[in-house]
Amino acid sequence: MSITTVGLDADDTLWHNETIFRLTHARFVDLLADHGDTPTIEARLAETEQRNLRLYGYGVKGFTLSMIETAMELTGGEAPPHVVREILAAGREMLAHPVETLPGVDEVIAELSEKYRLVLITKGDLLDQERKLAASGLGDRFSAVEIVSEKDRATYDRVFNRHGTGPADAVMAGNSMKSDVLPAIAAGAFGVHIPYHVTWAHELADAPVNEPRYVSLARIGELPDWIAASADA
Amino acid sequence: MSITTVGLDADDTLWHNETIFRLTHARFVDLLADHGDTPTIEARLAETEQRNLRLYGYGVKGFTLSMIETAMELTGGEAPPHVVREILAAGREMLAHPVETLPGVDEVIAELSEKYRLVLITKGDLLDQERKLAASGLGDRFSAVEIVSEKDRATYDRVFNRHGTGPADAVMAGNSMKSDVLPAIAAGAFGVHIPYHVTWAHELADAPVNEPRYVSLARIGELPDWIAASADA
Repeated sequence: MSITTVGLDADDTLWHNETIFRLTHARFVDLLADHGDTPTIEARLAETEQRNLRLYGYGVKGFTLSMIETAMELTGGEAPPHVVREILAAGREMLAHPVETLPGVDEVIAELSEKYRLVLITKGDLLDQERKLAASGLGDRFSAVEIVSEKDRATYDRVFNRHGTGPADAVMAGNSMKSDVLPAIAAGAFGVHIPYHVTWAHELADAPVNEPRYVSLARIGELPDWIAASADA
Repeated sequence: MSITTVGLDADDTLWHNETIFRLTHARFVDLLADHGDTPTIEARLAETEQRNLRLYGYGVKGFTLSMIETAMELTGGEAPPHVVREILAAGREMLAHPVETLPGVDEVIAELSEKYRLVLITKGDLLDQERKLAASGLGDRFSAVEIVSEKDRATYDRVFNRHGTGPADAVMAGNSMKSDVLPAIAAGAFGVHIPYHVTWAHELADAPVNEPRYVSLARIGELPDWIAASADA
């Protein structure tokens, strides 16, 4: 086998993201504390997000709109103006948040980029994801950036054919079993799971069983050796 | 000269879009009629949109957030809940709006796709633009779709190199002088302006003077003949 291309997820694989969402969740729960307990508020927000995915897709802008909608639901349609203003401000702060790469990322990306074609494959708001890549300082290491509305088997098939030599010669690495690992393996690529310490409920899925093209690594620092020893051996 | 690739803008070039924004503007002005006259409300909304472009980019989700923010500004921070709910509903309706192709589009796209590689190049929300392309029934005619955060010279250079044989062999057609025509010509492509009956103020710009690679056509139906007679002659 000969690996030519390595796909990498962005949020929670290269830099912190879900932690910022969690902080905003906590702020949201505080704002609406008079209208429900924490599990109730969290559950309603998750329901609204899930329902709106079809319309809004992924990213901070849709999340902000879903927070406002949930605030309306929890208050019988009468969310006080200061709550709405606070949610707007929280969304804006998320979009301006500094980008902090995860430990080992800078070195690993530099090392991998010498040997393989690197492709960033991420969901979310177009402009926001471009901003984060620019702020990360990693932009020049990637041959291509694909910001996609959904990560399914067809997505990986298309992206690895466009930017590489097809999924069979590609490794996809990321923190989401559901979006980064399983559909990449279904497309014929290797799938590497690198868990982040928190995962959005929407992205949870079981690990594949008896799947030779799958591995779970504790940290991204292990990725170059694993590719060299297993996928690219 | 030999044209290999035709880039086409989407909103207000292939299907109606700005008319839907204008209807939502009218609804917004009605909602806030107690807090300002129409020109004042319109001006504040335009300012908010312009200020937020850097954070939100283009598209309905950012526009919805900007409407809520403007409502807060116009009411001294105290927009009534029903106003916020109406704005959320208006945004959702925009995202679910049926797609209506402009006169002549279906025939022109079918004709051009037999001779040239067609690339859709559009700004806006990723998922929303994909939805509209699917709903238009035109998806299969395009070799590639590029949903971009900004349309500048570098964008056209990259897109026409990736999907064609470079900007010199490409024609870009669209309703925005500022986003579709001028930067495409700057990149070395032909730029065809096909005005829509209304244009978002942000997209206005002067036509180029003494520019042999520029033309303005009254309707998209004239595009195939113009390419054959002028660009691809």
